[in-house]
Amino acid sequence: MDSSLKKLFTCLSFPSVSTDSNYTEDVRDCANWLLSYTKEMGLESTLHETSRHPIIVAKSETKPNRPNILLYGHYDVQPVDPIELWSSQPFEPEIQNDRIYARGASDNKGQFMAHLCGIEQTLSTHGELPVNLTIILEGEEEIGSPNLKPFLQEHTEQLKSDIIVISDNTMMTKNLGTLAYGTRGLTALEITLQGPSNDLHSGIWGGSVANPANALSQLISTLHDDDKKVTIEGFYDDVLEIQDWEKEQWEKLPGDDQETKDITGATELTGEKNYTSFEQRVARPTADVNGIWGGYQGEGSKTIVPAKASAKLSFRLVPNQDPEDINKKIHQHLEKHLPKGVSIDISFGHSGESYMMDPHSKFGVAAQNALRKTFQGDPLLIREGGTLPILSDFKTTLGAESLLLGLALPDANMHGPDENLPVKNFEQGIELNKNLLQALAES
Amino acid sequence: MDSSLKKLFTCLSFPSVSTDSNYTEDVRDCANWLLSYTKEMGLESTLHETSRHPIIVAKSETKPNRPNILLYGHYDVQPVDPIELWSSQPFEPEIQNDRIYARGASDNKGQFMAHLCGIEQTLSTHGELPVNLTIILEGEEEIGSPNLKPFLQEHTEQLKSDIIVISDNTMMTKNLGTLAYGTRGLTALEITLQGPSNDLHSGIWGGSVANPANALSQLISTLHDDDKKVTIEGFYDDVLEIQDWEKEQWEKLPGDDQETKDITGATELTGEKNYTSFEQRVARPTADVNGIWGGYQGEGSKTIVPAKASAKLSFRLVPNQDPEDINKKIHQHLEKHLPKGVSIDISFGHSGESYMMDPHSKFGVAAQNALRKTFQGDPLLIREGGTLPILSDFKTTLGAESLLLGLALPDANMHGPDENLPVKNFEQGIELNKNLLQALAES
Repeated sequence: MDSSLKKLFTCLSFPSVSTDSNYTEDVRDCANWLLSYTKEMGLESTLHETSRHPIIVAKSETKPNRPNILLYGHYDVQPVDPIELWSSQPFEPEIQNDRIYARGASDNKGQFMAHLCGIEQTLSTHGELPVNLTIILEGEEEIGSPNLKPFLQEHTEQLKSDIIVISDNTMMTKNLGTLAYGTRGLTALEITLQGPSNDLHSGIWGGSVANPANALSQLISTLHDDDKKVTIEGFYDDVLEIQDWEKEQWEKLPGDDQETKDITGATELTGEKNYTSFEQRVARPTADVNGIWGGYQGEGSKTIVPAKASAKLSFRLVPNQDPEDINKKIHQHLEKHLPKGVSIDISFGHSGESYMMDPHSKFGVAAQNALRKTFQGDPLLIREGGTLPILSDFKTTLGAESLLLGLALPDANMHGPDENLPVKNFEQGIELNKNLLQALAES
Repeated sequence: MDSSLKKLFTCLSFPSVSTDSNYTEDVRDCANWLLSYTKEMGLESTLHETSRHPIIVAKSETKPNRPNILLYGHYDVQPVDPIELWSSQPFEPEIQNDRIYARGASDNKGQFMAHLCGIEQTLSTHGELPVNLTIILEGEEEIGSPNLKPFLQEHTEQLKSDIIVISDNTMMTKNLGTLAYGTRGLTALEITLQGPSNDLHSGIWGGSVANPANALSQLISTLHDDDKKVTIEGFYDDVLEIQDWEKEQWEKLPGDDQETKDITGATELTGEKNYTSFEQRVARPTADVNGIWGGYQGEGSKTIVPAKASAKLSFRLVPNQDPEDINKKIHQHLEKHLPKGVSIDISFGHSGESYMMDPHSKFGVAAQNALRKTFQGDPLLIREGGTLPILSDFKTTLGAESLLLGLALPDANMHGPDENLPVKNFEQGIELNKNLLQALAES
């Protein structure tokens, strides 16, 4: 086993589960190991305490007239449950069929360690990096990065950057370098409809008293029209239409509707009229029920008019929708379409901004060049359907755009059992790091 | 305390909870006590074993040329939970503010015991009853009477009757004698909509893959139009329209919409257009969601496209809707309006026939006369919104109609804590029994 892979295996062996306080010391052990490792390779590294898990900052030598690059990663991992579905021990990494199996193999240790090993090799070969590099590794990504934004705000000078590099996502398919230049935003809320003050006998009262479960269904049904467009007034006002160059790019993407059906188990792809399935998933906003409940859910039947019914809703947003503005419009829609005889409680939860940078900008082109060199072919330019609030945090606090350079594969099982990363992807990640720093230096 | 009230208190002190096997012996003790009591008053009583709780049959002397009357009651009771909400011990009956508090005070011991005490007094005073009486007391009503219909079928000769008398419901309000001549039917079902094969990340897939919780809401919303009419094709084909004489009767009923709002906590009464609230509740069919669930229902948010969403639905039916026919129509509607991209599983549960007899028939008029004499005023003629499948069981097995003569009050808290029956209602029940047997004999 080569020394980079050994380093990755060591990193993967820490059970750095951030959400479970039983692993607090393991999270810290992992942070300390990263502190030593980055020091050993010649960086100036410091461990910063937060109210929960530490942040590691490692800096290279700073020289004038070269770009300041910030590399972000997170060393905390998801819990391993359900452990019985794993084929191996999650914190005893092993290679099977040329893939590394371990919790964190793809999310995110395998990806940021590829960068770190690339940096180590460059420093070892050339004695210095071609750029001014700052590495920031947090231990709280899987619990929502509560301390990251405050940390960025407190250390804007130290972390000042021209561009951010993040590999914490997937490439479209193996050997096809992928630059993601946009993500969707999100706003989540919970609504509860109250009808009668208690569950009522549906024989005695049914027919006369409004049923909040029927009313909730009615209300949710008003969120879409027959074309699967969201019907909230003004919802699309600020939506950035998909650009022609994006449509051109996306026509070249691998994968088709049948593949999507195979992966998801959906029998038919539905979605907003006049958009392809990929467009619907990355560049169009949504209105999804994430959960719904009310009344009797046990065995058999209980013929009641329930007192309450609730739903969790989330809306994926796209550039340039503003979550606060959309929340107001959602609120107005729900009040306006509320069926008679029930009251509504609306509780907004977390939200996250969508993100978009220009892949044809100076650094975008540099990233494309690095991808082209590493994967020996034109990179794919895509947007992602998920939400990465740290991207807008980086932009607002540090003023820098982010390059999303996914190294994991779509079947990496991030967050699931048998999480994995092909050895080849790890090696490609090391090469990508070298090529990227060089390309950014030359840009 | 007079001797009838003492008898009732004894009966109420048996914790004859039919659903809980811990009380199996108590249920039997209650049955044996009723066996002795009916024997003591001079009836020929027998205890019949079933696969669970026994049935008591008590018969008076049979003479030719007088009507055969069947009196039905049930001696089993609901569980007492939540026990902490009771102000007294549920099986230690006591009188507070002229009301008897105990589990079973109204449902059903207090009501059938009023009849039994009336019979005892008539036998004690006159040595005989004016009719041929058969009393049937079951111990499984609160668990759905699984052994009653088979018992009726096996003993049709022994139980042959011209009319059934049942007091297992409420009168409209105190001192207003009430004859209920109809009940609604019911059909219940559970539906599950399946979208993707597993819960999906709503960022990665949302917008393209059908969301079964949204789809379920959409499907449920198709069950009603804006006038709150059920939109299932052919649903109203066999509905018996409310007769003019019924409308006249019901205009005289006490209670108004404000009272309904006060009792239920509903802020506004909704319901089928062009019908009063009372009409909606007793003579018009419904489509209610009794329970709904799917996706993430825990704290915070989990932004998924759930794999499944389910609902329990029940439809109250009215004369002359046939549950089987309606089930077919529901099935067709659900299949026809199923949103794209999801599959549906429909599982029909229990159903019960609606019921209607003619209160102006010979025995109906006799019951009205008995009510008039007992309560010194014209009786109210109503239908009930709930479902009593035993009524159609009696009709199909014994060929006899049923008179529903409720003695409990609407605030009796049947099935709830502090179940009660006014002492006066118990006494009125005793008088009603005497007047009723006499009126039926003379009819």
